[in-house]
Amino acid sequence: MSNTINITSAFWSRYRNLVRTEMIPFQWNVLNDTAGIKIEKERLNDEGIPSEKSNAIENFKVAAGRTKGTHYGWTFQDSDVYKWLEAVAYSLREKMDPELEKKALETIDLIADAQEEDGYLDTFYSILGIEYRYQSLAGSHELYCMGHFIEAAVAYYEATGNEKVLKVAKKAADNIDANFGAEEGKIHGYDGHEEIEIGLLRLYHITNEKRYLSLAKYFLMERGKHPDFFKEQAKVYKGPNALGGIEKATASYFQNHKPILEQNTAEGHAVRVVYMCTALADLAATTGDRVIYEACKKLWDNITTKRMFITGGIGSTVHGEAFTLDYDLPNDTMYCETCAAIGLIFFSRQMLRNEAKSEYAEVMERALYNCTLAGMALDGKHFFYVNPLEVKPSKSLKDPGKSHVKPVRPSWLGCACCPPNLARMITSLDDYIYTVSDDCILINQYISSKASLAVKDGCALIQQTTDFPWDDKDIMVVTNNSTSTIRVGIRIPMWADKVTLKLNGKETMVKPEWGYHYEEIEHGKTIEIQLMFSMPILRNYCNPMVSEDIGKIAISRGPLVYCLEEVDNGDNLCGLSLPEDAKLSYSFKADVLNGVGVITAYGKKLQQNVDNLLYTNKKPEKKDVKLTFIPYYAWANRGENEMEVWVRE
Amino acid sequence: MSNTINITSAFWSRYRNLVRTEMIPFQWNVLNDTAGIKIEKERLNDEGIPSEKSNAIENFKVAAGRTKGTHYGWTFQDSDVYKWLEAVAYSLREKMDPELEKKALETIDLIADAQEEDGYLDTFYSILGIEYRYQSLAGSHELYCMGHFIEAAVAYYEATGNEKVLKVAKKAADNIDANFGAEEGKIHGYDGHEEIEIGLLRLYHITNEKRYLSLAKYFLMERGKHPDFFKEQAKVYKGPNALGGIEKATASYFQNHKPILEQNTAEGHAVRVVYMCTALADLAATTGDRVIYEACKKLWDNITTKRMFITGGIGSTVHGEAFTLDYDLPNDTMYCETCAAIGLIFFSRQMLRNEAKSEYAEVMERALYNCTLAGMALDGKHFFYVNPLEVKPSKSLKDPGKSHVKPVRPSWLGCACCPPNLARMITSLDDYIYTVSDDCILINQYISSKASLAVKDGCALIQQTTDFPWDDKDIMVVTNNSTSTIRVGIRIPMWADKVTLKLNGKETMVKPEWGYHYEEIEHGKTIEIQLMFSMPILRNYCNPMVSEDIGKIAISRGPLVYCLEEVDNGDNLCGLSLPEDAKLSYSFKADVLNGVGVITAYGKKLQQNVDNLLYTNKKPEKKDVKLTFIPYYAWANRGENEMEVWVRE
Repeated sequence: MSNTINITSAFWSRYRNLVRTEMIPFQWNVLNDTAGIKIEKERLNDEGIPSEKSNAIENFKVAAGRTKGTHYGWTFQDSDVYKWLEAVAYSLREKMDPELEKKALETIDLIADAQEEDGYLDTFYSILGIEYRYQSLAGSHELYCMGHFIEAAVAYYEATGNEKVLKVAKKAADNIDANFGAEEGKIHGYDGHEEIEIGLLRLYHITNEKRYLSLAKYFLMERGKHPDFFKEQAKVYKGPNALGGIEKATASYFQNHKPILEQNTAEGHAVRVVYMCTALADLAATTGDRVIYEACKKLWDNITTKRMFITGGIGSTVHGEAFTLDYDLPNDTMYCETCAAIGLIFFSRQMLRNEAKSEYAEVMERALYNCTLAGMALDGKHFFYVNPLEVKPSKSLKDPGKSHVKPVRPSWLGCACCPPNLARMITSLDDYIYTVSDDCILINQYISSKASLAVKDGCALIQQTTDFPWDDKDIMVVTNNSTSTIRVGIRIPMWADKVTLKLNGKETMVKPEWGYHYEEIEHGKTIEIQLMFSMPILRNYCNPMVSEDIGKIAISRGPLVYCLEEVDNGDNLCGLSLPEDAKLSYSFKADVLNGVGVITAYGKKLQQNVDNLLYTNKKPEKKDVKLTFIPYYAWANRGENEMEVWVRE
Repeated sequence: MSNTINITSAFWSRYRNLVRTEMIPFQWNVLNDTAGIKIEKERLNDEGIPSEKSNAIENFKVAAGRTKGTHYGWTFQDSDVYKWLEAVAYSLREKMDPELEKKALETIDLIADAQEEDGYLDTFYSILGIEYRYQSLAGSHELYCMGHFIEAAVAYYEATGNEKVLKVAKKAADNIDANFGAEEGKIHGYDGHEEIEIGLLRLYHITNEKRYLSLAKYFLMERGKHPDFFKEQAKVYKGPNALGGIEKATASYFQNHKPILEQNTAEGHAVRVVYMCTALADLAATTGDRVIYEACKKLWDNITTKRMFITGGIGSTVHGEAFTLDYDLPNDTMYCETCAAIGLIFFSRQMLRNEAKSEYAEVMERALYNCTLAGMALDGKHFFYVNPLEVKPSKSLKDPGKSHVKPVRPSWLGCACCPPNLARMITSLDDYIYTVSDDCILINQYISSKASLAVKDGCALIQQTTDFPWDDKDIMVVTNNSTSTIRVGIRIPMWADKVTLKLNGKETMVKPEWGYHYEEIEHGKTIEIQLMFSMPILRNYCNPMVSEDIGKIAISRGPLVYCLEEVDNGDNLCGLSLPEDAKLSYSFKADVLNGVGVITAYGKKLQQNVDNLLYTNKKPEKKDVKLTFIPYYAWANRGENEMEVWVRE
């Protein structure tokens, strides 16, 4: 028995519709290079970056022998197709669509045709030649791509029951199992970009085949045991250098500097880190291994208490799209890739399976409603890869150190990692609302929805009704249709200063354990929980170790971080400040940015000195100004302009 | 009749002795690769950077046919020898040293031998082959190197009367003149790195040969008229790519985007800009051309009122070591190359020849006492290329975007542009104290010295006695030994809040015109001027357009900008602040950092929140702390530690 969850939330339905009606069809055209689709070229220093077209479907046709040609694109071009297929799976789960299903089935046939006899599946190396397989794992992305395929296959199988796609996935996993492992004659290595571990664990969950669990564990535990693995492969590899010298990157770029269980800090490429952590936390929850869970917690703590932006963004530098050091959170030069925030949500979800602590759900919510959602324009057609907390367009244009920080969202890029990741995140959002175990359901996210959730010997029905993130209450009706008593854990939000809870209309004392208030429900019974959470406008202060935010505040309300935009507040936003005693007012504006809650206050703005001097001994004067804050996720939807999250207090 | 100026200042004599006794002999050993000299390798991403050794003298031996071998090093390796020779010239001018003179004469002989029959002088291309000459000017540095040689030759000739060196210089200039110019058959181009223009103008000043003036003017005026010049040369050039693709840089990197007279903003590589401006301002002063002077002023104003750090440093980004945009002055990622600050001093000096405005001398002083001097450790053996205004050593180590910002001065690097530039700047400092014209002498800098200066029909003697930059007075005794009346213009410092002036012991009203107070001195007369300038401790505020410095102040006293160092103030300097009403106290400490004036105050330090949270809704608490500021130039002389110039107010 599986879970079915229908999201009814107005806030989220709009996004889910956009993905279904705009993004998935658009992405299909991109993958097929259908005439007339505008793909933006990335602005990169290197030459020869494949970004003119996608060619992704064509690559499969060549590999399948259906047509003649060469491979075009990155070594990870296949993953664009797989992420599309995964989003399609969730979309069909939400709403069947025969035409879309037809495209998916065609694609599955094509993928099956492109798969080698022995199960190997990667168009780049299939076309290149068998002797190059698995020989340059630093940049080859073979296991990464197959991991994404396995995720898509599992999702598609779960949504539709399609056996063929699952068979292809098992055959691919078996090929990997035959080639990697501790046994003599196998490769004692792993992929440069973690992902296969996530895929194998999902395949294990659906097939219960222990080999897949063991292989995922092997990849995770082997990592970092021989930090020069990629360099050693590169020494003897004779094939094309797929990704300009990536094998020369530091071991920590690949999380390869130490065995995983000894890693105390999040190092290297941020997306890789959180993908690795996601698999590790899944492994811990699946096996009940507390040592592995402790390793996850060390990395979780390091990320969320020392290396995470207030928006849930991670990755402090464009160089290697990577973590740097504790408390290094530069608002205007960071990376904060949309994919990394999504990966942090994946990680949170797995941590909740290990331990019912609301801090995991809180970080999930922070990353979801801020950095992740900001990755997408309100029109669903433009996307940020990099999500800054401070932008001045002229600096992005003229300071090469900020050229990666775009002030407006480009349309689909040639290398499309973030948009398809957003598509699969949003279409599968229902999977993140609850954490379900045999006898307990955690209600993690306040999202209007109707769910039927499988518990030990039956199911539970939960209906949430809320206008979150705008409204301050959530009515949850839970029916226990199993044969025994179950518990529900209701997350008590950290950002609320006052929480009241009515059980069947009667106020009850809120007694949170690690952030969840529990109620027992006998079998056959229904309860109604009315959760009221005040949503005060909060002034957030950063740890004084974060030099960039000292003396500044960030405004938030509920899960939403707010920001100032030039269009509302004039230029040179850095000259603005908010007095300590300024009153902040909230009002919902249905006609602004598809409907957002706006926060206003009276602040100050520094005035230019009379002679426009660069340096002066006279303190600049201030004048009163009205400040208007909008939710961060909605920024850059009204043309190119300045933006900042942290404002001087 | 030439000027002779002997610096007696205790502050400067220490530096000048260091250059004479430490730097010049050390540099000689570097140039000769004398065993045991430690040259640090630059940390650069590119491979194949020549930095293991200098080989500079050996290159000349190969080019001269004295020994067989190949060239090693950069295309601009020759300039290391020339800058050394120039510093030697100034050093011999200050104090004759037969042993040093012997080395210089040997070197001049070697250079003469390495010069081609036709006057061409460049070891890289001499060794490579005649067909490559002048064919890749974007990166070849041929004219740049010859420009440095000409500067050295003129300096050496002026110091010692050596005719041979001047002959070699003229022969080189004649070769350039034969190859470049508007005439048909000549190259209509210029060097990628300005410098030849400075050299040619100096050669004109000493020889009065109009061709050199015309050629300098040609190079300056031709620049930017065909922005693709370097790319066009690169298309047909078949020789080695000397400087990894520099010809692909934007035209503005080379100040080649527009004709010079149309350039309104300082663009591209900062050192190149100020070298170009130095020659342009020299040309303007030499020819009296006001149109050219107006062009200089536009660039001067842009640099000094919108693109200059408070230390006189310039260059806002490491990418291209370049200017970026107005008011973009990031304290921790900037470049602020020592050479660029020195170039700004060169520019100031030439501007003073055009117009007697003290703003030129003020900027000269700012760049000299702060960014330039910070380029050198107090031991004279370690050097910064990059002079940050804020450093956290752990960030320099772990944030690749700050890896160019060193927290301690390395010893001599393989590519030694800044240290020899410092050596020639400090040994020729006497040239910057006065601006001398026929009937007027501007006293620009307060430096104890004895000077004999050539005026129209005789000379003037000036003796300055001051303990500047610590003391608040300067006694100037001026004797007019010419046959007519002369004027002296005494600079009235902008940083003084009260200035009094005694003429022959009697207080007189200070009446500055453009920052100079003038006195007339009849022939045969001597006057004594006692200039008293209060040196208050100043709080400097930045223009509100500079986002990085908003809400912060920089402390200065007289010409010296101050900074906080971790060794005095504990770590996490960003947590410190200075209340608006805090009293700042000055005292001279003879035992600190070779004797410096120290400024102290009671300030505040943000305290860590109880749970060490990354984000909190509780304003962090502060505690009282004592703050100790030291002069910026003296930072990083007590081990690796944090430093910051701008502190929150």
